[in-house]
Amino acid sequence: MTPPSSPSPSPARPSPARPASAPPLALTMGDPAGIGGDLALRVWRDRGGLGPVPPFVVLDDARRLAALAATLGWPVPILRVTRPDEAPAAFGQGLPVLHRPLAAPAHAGRPDPVHGPAVRAAIDDAVALIRQGRVAGVVTNPLNKDVMQAAGFAFPGHTEYLAHLAGQGPATVAMMLACPGLRVVPVTIHVALAQVPRVLTTEAIVAAGRVTARALVRDFGLSTPRLAVAGLNPHAGENGRMGDEEARVIVPAVERLRAAGLAVFDPRPADTLFHAEARATYDAVLCMYHDQALIPLKTIDFAGGVNVTLGLPFVRTSPDHGTAFDIAGTGRADPTSLVAALRLAADMAAVRALPWEDRP
Amino acid sequence: MTPPSSPSPSPARPSPARPASAPPLALTMGDPAGIGGDLALRVWRDRGGLGPVPPFVVLDDARRLAALAATLGWPVPILRVTRPDEAPAAFGQGLPVLHRPLAAPAHAGRPDPVHGPAVRAAIDDAVALIRQGRVAGVVTNPLNKDVMQAAGFAFPGHTEYLAHLAGQGPATVAMMLACPGLRVVPVTIHVALAQVPRVLTTEAIVAAGRVTARALVRDFGLSTPRLAVAGLNPHAGENGRMGDEEARVIVPAVERLRAAGLAVFDPRPADTLFHAEARATYDAVLCMYHDQALIPLKTIDFAGGVNVTLGLPFVRTSPDHGTAFDIAGTGRADPTSLVAALRLAADMAAVRALPWEDRP
Repeated sequence: MTPPSSPSPSPARPSPARPASAPPLALTMGDPAGIGGDLALRVWRDRGGLGPVPPFVVLDDARRLAALAATLGWPVPILRVTRPDEAPAAFGQGLPVLHRPLAAPAHAGRPDPVHGPAVRAAIDDAVALIRQGRVAGVVTNPLNKDVMQAAGFAFPGHTEYLAHLAGQGPATVAMMLACPGLRVVPVTIHVALAQVPRVLTTEAIVAAGRVTARALVRDFGLSTPRLAVAGLNPHAGENGRMGDEEARVIVPAVERLRAAGLAVFDPRPADTLFHAEARATYDAVLCMYHDQALIPLKTIDFAGGVNVTLGLPFVRTSPDHGTAFDIAGTGRADPTSLVAALRLAADMAAVRALPWEDRP
Repeated sequence: MTPPSSPSPSPARPSPARPASAPPLALTMGDPAGIGGDLALRVWRDRGGLGPVPPFVVLDDARRLAALAATLGWPVPILRVTRPDEAPAAFGQGLPVLHRPLAAPAHAGRPDPVHGPAVRAAIDDAVALIRQGRVAGVVTNPLNKDVMQAAGFAFPGHTEYLAHLAGQGPATVAMMLACPGLRVVPVTIHVALAQVPRVLTTEAIVAAGRVTARALVRDFGLSTPRLAVAGLNPHAGENGRMGDEEARVIVPAVERLRAAGLAVFDPRPADTLFHAEARATYDAVLCMYHDQALIPLKTIDFAGGVNVTLGLPFVRTSPDHGTAFDIAGTGRADPTSLVAALRLAADMAAVRALPWEDRP
């Protein structure tokens, strides 16, 4: 492993203070048969014990949230608001909701494509609000691809749909998973392992590297982000003895990123990148495939990982789990990841809101 | 994820007490230009501070160890012994060595194929001693494949050579990496990632599962070992949407292992298998490829992992690192993994030595 010529260390700065007048975050409903409602209610109910939770407003059906709170026996007043700027003041008294009525009653654990248009409308509305500067960030509750596709939604997931709403191509966004002490960006994501060597290109690595480095400055407040790069093969190929993608595909990407002025390390064996001492040497890792990124993240912090879409014109995070239909409506869903997603969105929004002279 | 029909939990038992008359472990020299000598000296020197270290005898050139100790300024008396059974009593006074002279002086950091025959002879001698019951386990210091192959050694590494010495085929042994709280067995090892889906077979998974389950009983003292199995693809293929190896290759192996009476779980998404709560549900994981096993192990315990060869007629462990030519002779090599390898070998030997009525 060879460090780049000038790997200026880039210590994380403390989160900027949140101004009292800051707009709230928007939390979308996600699939109403999933755990999104449980989580929104629980985060509000437990917000003292969970530590500081930034104010948010939920785009969801206010009646179904009230019914769910009643079923769970949780004392969470549902406060309908008409504008996001009412939410921060209301947040102390109850859960602020921008009412988005469902077309039919939702049943926990029983997904129904009839709700597809409302799930999508909540995302559309949240994006419209953030473009108007009326919310500070978009946090999305999980949806289910099969249900959404049955409802005519043509996108693989949130990330692609949000890029579409922003009028951006897929190479301009990247998915980051973040937990305290580790940020990983898988260059290829939801493809079979056998396809990874075929779809992994120098261009895809360069695109992910550029988007990641820019976001580490714009959203995470780092001055000179240091990017580690995982090899694809065992021992990063051991000089071509076990695969040549390092030399043929990855190193050329590293060189192009360095030529663009970024501090990028040579590809390292993936198994040497994720212990605490290694993690202290970089700000994010470009991983070549899904599990190379997700295994270490979820080994270190199974419940608290956050999914962040990098490269959008607005802040978007989400909890790093699915709809969990099997426990929806039971109140047993773990709110750790949603709380982390809300906090990270608020921190990112605060960095974006800094005046230029205060930026790194 | 579905548990097998009868996943009898199998709590680890405390290590059996080591009888005072037990034979010592044998530690081979490994490449004399690597860190093996530094480590042997350091483990003896620091044995108080490192916690209990089982007595061992080194098969190495006594003169070069004495010279290395002098260079490092470490007060480690080198005690030539002629028989392993002198080692336990001698261990309190110095480092017991079965002198195996090198053909030429060794230079730290400058590997030389001239030492190949002596490196190999140390392994041969250690195996002969354990077959005679004169040592309790074989712990091997690292060698370098290129150097050994230049010396005419036709084996990829220790594991294959030890299987050859034991007269066994490759399907009868398996490589385990172990640290406190995690044991992983990669079914494919040193192959390019692109080759993994091609070389991964139902037969290979079944063979690794059988060897692993048997070793967990014979060497680790578990009564009914529970084996987790990682999927190959993201989300374990998500019902065939991202790869079909789970249904086509892995599930048939799980079924065959269960038909043989073993407690084996269905393949799970690899990123859900390695946090502390998941680790408590199984005794070892069958992983489909190198980094799937090594990333979590080295994330959890970078310095203390131990490489264990399962399925041999004798106990063999080794530190989970290479020759580290760049720091050989400096005394800076971290002894954590060698200490763990010595302790695990002693524990495994003690389990094997239990009378049948005391076995699980």
